[in-house]
Amino acid sequence: MSTAFSVETTNYQPPSWEAILAAHARIASRIHRTPVVTSTSLNAMTGAQLFFKCENLQKTGSFKIRGASNAILSLSEQEAARGIVTQSSGNHGAAVACAATWRGVPAWIVMPRNAPAVKAKAIEGYGGKVVFCEPTVTARKTTCDRVQAETGAHLVHPYDDDRIIAGQATAAKELLEEVGDLHAVFAPVSGGGLLSGTCLGAKGIRADLRVFGCEPERADDAYRSLTTGTLQSQDSSDTIADGLRASLAPRTFAILRQHVDRILLVSEEEIISAARLVWERMKIIIEPSSAVAIAPLLRPGVVASLNLPKRPDGTAPKLGVIFSGGNVDLSSLPWK
Amino acid sequence: MSTAFSVETTNYQPPSWEAILAAHARIASRIHRTPVVTSTSLNAMTGAQLFFKCENLQKTGSFKIRGASNAILSLSEQEAARGIVTQSSGNHGAAVACAATWRGVPAWIVMPRNAPAVKAKAIEGYGGKVVFCEPTVTARKTTCDRVQAETGAHLVHPYDDDRIIAGQATAAKELLEEVGDLHAVFAPVSGGGLLSGTCLGAKGIRADLRVFGCEPERADDAYRSLTTGTLQSQDSSDTIADGLRASLAPRTFAILRQHVDRILLVSEEEIISAARLVWERMKIIIEPSSAVAIAPLLRPGVVASLNLPKRPDGTAPKLGVIFSGGNVDLSSLPWK
Repeated sequence: MSTAFSVETTNYQPPSWEAILAAHARIASRIHRTPVVTSTSLNAMTGAQLFFKCENLQKTGSFKIRGASNAILSLSEQEAARGIVTQSSGNHGAAVACAATWRGVPAWIVMPRNAPAVKAKAIEGYGGKVVFCEPTVTARKTTCDRVQAETGAHLVHPYDDDRIIAGQATAAKELLEEVGDLHAVFAPVSGGGLLSGTCLGAKGIRADLRVFGCEPERADDAYRSLTTGTLQSQDSSDTIADGLRASLAPRTFAILRQHVDRILLVSEEEIISAARLVWERMKIIIEPSSAVAIAPLLRPGVVASLNLPKRPDGTAPKLGVIFSGGNVDLSSLPWK
Repeated sequence: MSTAFSVETTNYQPPSWEAILAAHARIASRIHRTPVVTSTSLNAMTGAQLFFKCENLQKTGSFKIRGASNAILSLSEQEAARGIVTQSSGNHGAAVACAATWRGVPAWIVMPRNAPAVKAKAIEGYGGKVVFCEPTVTARKTTCDRVQAETGAHLVHPYDDDRIIAGQATAAKELLEEVGDLHAVFAPVSGGGLLSGTCLGAKGIRADLRVFGCEPERADDAYRSLTTGTLQSQDSSDTIADGLRASLAPRTFAILRQHVDRILLVSEEEIISAARLVWERMKIIIEPSSAVAIAPLLRPGVVASLNLPKRPDGTAPKLGVIFSGGNVDLSSLPWK
């Protein structure tokens, strides 16, 4: 779905700080300013002072509404008039459906036929029209193209889009506005929209801040892309972190290459165990994709190994963690 | 465990507003000022503007730490010196263990032998010493007496205690401080500590506020007590709302008779369905006992039937709901 271009041969300019400010002004009255919460027991377990930005409590249950609403609310009347189309089997689809309803235009969400029924139902609940296709990359692309051709709808890509990246950046911006003296921020990475936005939103406020991406071992394309310096694809993945199965796109790869300190990989067992720990101790529901961002910090010694600047007063480093979403099927929990 | 006295023959004076202010000053730095959250979808379902006071996000996972810490921190050195004893199979036990640790004294928690292992583990995690007994009312009382005789520990009853009631009142006080124009507040009722405190804490700020108690049909002693005007007991109950199996005590009965507008009863199915709805839509974990407070509002037409004062501008009434706790065993969810 993304427009093919190579970051090697273009002078790609990521969204500016002004674009992020404009995005925030555009969407702030529509979305929740989600709480930043702490946990004494998780602090004790990790040896850090953790600040969790709760996008699981965001409208539509994930951060995706930030980018989707920024993109859709910034369209001209003419661009928006014939509606929106996108492909997604999850949170981006719900966010586009919701933001299109706010805008008063229809949204078509192309979904693989084998996506969980609960996700299609959620999209319809937000007013979206679900268009099923075969569960292949090709079918999703051709179905999306067909819907676009038939309806004249405007395409909103889940992450390879500057309006989306600027919108996602507002989560880290809010976190830094609330906790100004963080040493580092941790966010999950899939297509890289949230992590790119986190880099731009956090470093726009504190240029020296460290940003870490967290990724399942079973969907490690961002790790491979940043290690090799060449954009790698993720052909398929069965990670339980179902929001993290996409691959970086040219825009997000360019931003992450410049701004991310390191990608931390986690096993499926670590993801499940971290999710359960957060549910039990913090009493909030995070989806496995969110748990990926806290999982690496639960390994003994990891915080010390990150080489964060020593604090003069010897207190534990302050780390921000973005809980990206909370949409899970409560009929089949990950630890059953 | 409660001291027997009759409200008919005493001039019982509930905790004063000054006692509640003193309790709040005593405990505020130790506990969380829990967030008050809203949900667009639950507003739409109920026809009300709902404000949820999230004591499920409180330290130890429930409001019980408010009363327990007020009681334990207000003891003289001499009273506290030999530790604390109580009986509880759940949240009060964890709260007493935690508050005793803050005070630097031991706590003995008498629990029935058949209580879930996870609850004993939680109490031990907060530094409490678990003393198992046979699962009968008599065994719990005699074991508690024996521990008290052997150790000289100070008894802190779960609810028939003015220090406990004053502590629990701080939750509603915080809610009213945040949303001053509520029309009514809903809280679950078991032994009546939280509901009594809710009456005193809320009406201390807004004398005309309506207070509703919510109770499982299967543990309806408060409903029966207030209907008959005589304190009724609950011999046993198998309600899934495991925090609501106790009976009113003389103190709480006296306060509820004076201040509660009505007790609303809910079925087991309504409790389970309300809990699941909150988990799914609000992404926070509440225990079934918490769900009891929102369950009646989900019945069609209930909000209109409460005879709340008409609002001049025609907007929906503002209702506060106290989510009392979030301690559930994630291995066996209520809807499995």
